[in-house]
Amino acid sequence: MDNDTFRKNAHQFVDWMADYMENIESYPVKSKVQPGEVKSRVPDSAPQWGEEMDTIFKDFENIIMPGISHWQHPGWFAYFPANSSPESVLAEMLTAGLGVQGMIWDTSPSATELEEVMMRWLRDMLGLPGDFTGVIQDTASTATLCALLSARERITHFNINEKGFQQTLRVYTSSQTHSSIEKGVKIAGFGRENLVLIDTDDRFAMNPKALEQAIRKDLDQGLIPCCVAATLGTTSSLAMDPLDAIGPICQKHKIWLHVDAAFAGTAAIAPEHREFMKGVHHADSFVFNPHKWMLTNFDCSAYFVKQPDILRRTFSILPEYLKTRADDQVNNYRDWGIQLGRRFRALKLWFVIRSRGVEGIRHMVREHIRLAQWFADQVKDHKDFELTAPTSLTLVCFRHVRPGLGEDELTTLNRTLLERINASGEVYLTHTVLNGKYSLRMSVAQRNTLQRHVENAWQITREIAREIEDQAGDTTL
Amino acid sequence: MDNDTFRKNAHQFVDWMADYMENIESYPVKSKVQPGEVKSRVPDSAPQWGEEMDTIFKDFENIIMPGISHWQHPGWFAYFPANSSPESVLAEMLTAGLGVQGMIWDTSPSATELEEVMMRWLRDMLGLPGDFTGVIQDTASTATLCALLSARERITHFNINEKGFQQTLRVYTSSQTHSSIEKGVKIAGFGRENLVLIDTDDRFAMNPKALEQAIRKDLDQGLIPCCVAATLGTTSSLAMDPLDAIGPICQKHKIWLHVDAAFAGTAAIAPEHREFMKGVHHADSFVFNPHKWMLTNFDCSAYFVKQPDILRRTFSILPEYLKTRADDQVNNYRDWGIQLGRRFRALKLWFVIRSRGVEGIRHMVREHIRLAQWFADQVKDHKDFELTAPTSLTLVCFRHVRPGLGEDELTTLNRTLLERINASGEVYLTHTVLNGKYSLRMSVAQRNTLQRHVENAWQITREIAREIEDQAGDTTL
Repeated sequence: MDNDTFRKNAHQFVDWMADYMENIESYPVKSKVQPGEVKSRVPDSAPQWGEEMDTIFKDFENIIMPGISHWQHPGWFAYFPANSSPESVLAEMLTAGLGVQGMIWDTSPSATELEEVMMRWLRDMLGLPGDFTGVIQDTASTATLCALLSARERITHFNINEKGFQQTLRVYTSSQTHSSIEKGVKIAGFGRENLVLIDTDDRFAMNPKALEQAIRKDLDQGLIPCCVAATLGTTSSLAMDPLDAIGPICQKHKIWLHVDAAFAGTAAIAPEHREFMKGVHHADSFVFNPHKWMLTNFDCSAYFVKQPDILRRTFSILPEYLKTRADDQVNNYRDWGIQLGRRFRALKLWFVIRSRGVEGIRHMVREHIRLAQWFADQVKDHKDFELTAPTSLTLVCFRHVRPGLGEDELTTLNRTLLERINASGEVYLTHTVLNGKYSLRMSVAQRNTLQRHVENAWQITREIAREIEDQAGDTTL
Repeated sequence: MDNDTFRKNAHQFVDWMADYMENIESYPVKSKVQPGEVKSRVPDSAPQWGEEMDTIFKDFENIIMPGISHWQHPGWFAYFPANSSPESVLAEMLTAGLGVQGMIWDTSPSATELEEVMMRWLRDMLGLPGDFTGVIQDTASTATLCALLSARERITHFNINEKGFQQTLRVYTSSQTHSSIEKGVKIAGFGRENLVLIDTDDRFAMNPKALEQAIRKDLDQGLIPCCVAATLGTTSSLAMDPLDAIGPICQKHKIWLHVDAAFAGTAAIAPEHREFMKGVHHADSFVFNPHKWMLTNFDCSAYFVKQPDILRRTFSILPEYLKTRADDQVNNYRDWGIQLGRRFRALKLWFVIRSRGVEGIRHMVREHIRLAQWFADQVKDHKDFELTAPTSLTLVCFRHVRPGLGEDELTTLNRTLLERINASGEVYLTHTVLNGKYSLRMSVAQRNTLQRHVENAWQITREIAREIEDQAGDTTL
């Protein structure tokens, strides 16, 4: 493709993108295609000869677009969001245009050095202690794996890296923790049986006494406590593990404390919502995802560590072909994680933070929390609904209730409710199970979400619940 | 930022990007900034209030651009390339605009299903056996780690995932292999001491007899052979490990065979260059990077496996909050790798392959190989230069020689030569060491590279070599 064709198509695409953002509410937020529908429309093998971009783009609109669930739709209340923003998209355009691979300082000094500064900006924006140093990872799953590996190597004096496992190391986390902890524990060779799930309190937060007991029990049996993975903002209910109680326990037993604040971390940018960070200075590592709630295109996960030398030593490799004259004077981020190759992700952070300013991001955080609180209030005040967890920041866990129904019937009822809500095309919620209760998750943090969208979600929820009730009155549920 | 501002800026950026591509030769291919120069120009903390995009963009041009090494410059002969293409950049724009996170089928069916089809296209384009199934990973480092973990779990019947290490498992690779193998071996808990480096022949390819001996020796000592990581196209010299000899050894001993063809894989798209793939049907897993030589923006690594159920079982997690109604009918790629979150990477493959056609990509491959061969011929025919490895596909390893100089002096001489070549701003080469010989790596595979760029590289190399010689004549080297 020559440059003029690129220029012409790129301008067209810009208008398409701007129109898409403008009209995003005209799309059903959750795709309505059936399994296999998209792939049935794509040929089985590659074309022998090149095709025109206009043809390809038409197929994009006709084949791909119907199979898109619209993460940037203001009715996106599913999972956690993956917010982008116009500023971030602009930066991604430049990033793609430059096509830089920043594995080491030499291969684009700006990529490395801007990343260093952006990590300092983020650290200070969240009020993290000044002795944290940061690196961008793709996802919190990867960052958590890095933490587990660093913990593994610190406690064994880098001996597993060298000789492999020769002892049983234990990892502790709450029963509400994200699946990535278990995944990381398996990958790093600890074994799932050595992941100790600690009970939670009635707010679904880790019980520090139970943690201490589990550690003591392991010590008595000659097992080696290695890492505690605490969560600030669990996936199911945004529960906050109490770092100020967990931290001293870790310190006493010399256990690595990793903090997963993947979604909730962004809230700390607003000082009045920073309470949950109390005790974070005890952490050895901390991760939060600007790609979730901080307007930055997926992927961009901010990983902070207190001792970068441990991280680097865990991952360091230096083959001849990667040596450069600058090695002694610069950061080579290839040694700060799993992958060698690295995209230039700092650029979108720079664009977003500068364009919004810290106050702009704070404002968004406050609005989302206010909207979630509003939704929670409606649920609380309505006799046909109940909260199934304390509302934390932006996440409302709730369910429809009806007198006389058992747990199984309530599950069926709420599953039906969820499916019909999502079929509306206006709202996309997901679910979880809390204390055995099948619950709807209303996660209010999509960049475009306004009061009216949350009101609409509440109205649709009530209407569909009533419809189901009416139908159940006619026949049986 | 409102939509009109986005539209205005995005159009400006498109013109900037098109101009950049058009004028890329006016930039020095390797950045000339000094360590610390870029970060000294970025404020230490984030701005409190938002700034105008025009201001931010000016800083991008003035602060960031001087610190960019231009991977898309036709004088990029360093490392391996990370080719983009206009088509790929167009797709990246749409990907950023949609802001989709395709962790599971539900969250954008098109992302999952297009990925399935693209992996089939790639498999067939490379002539890989039809029983391979593919998934996109970010980098070959990650794919290789996936292979090591799958091997680990297959041989232990998923017992390390469950209980942790209880045996010593051995991994075999050549002494010329990429550093990611060692990194993966450490991460997965094998221990570096259990990575057995197999000797290579005079073409730097793994010696199958030495492999067999190493395996037998381990078996005699009660160690468990787990995985052989073979390379098609080593980083130092693009050496090809002989799969047709290695495969049967792996089969006999029931060892996982992983094939890393990160760069060279693309060559297989041209049938007459596919020779090196002989025996690939023995592989359990195979990786190559469309983001290196196949016009697709970094990152995009194509990972193929024969038994996807082993891959899935190695990584599978299914917390309540990720369950969907479609789970039984669809692929959920979250279980095919380390990360949970996934970008919509298949789109750029679709754009690139359709826009170029298989023939278009073949043409590029053939041209690059022809150009490298031309350069190798010049080196061979010149008394002041010598090849330090057989020229394979697109990589010429060579050095400047001068009568009467010892190895150390030759190293100093060629290091100086390399630095001065790279300071020219027109050409960017890197180095390696082969059989103790400090060598320049001329890697000819940047998309924009034409005959005149390779001729220019050869001319600059000779001129600078002569300059150094003249200066050495005046004083001492």
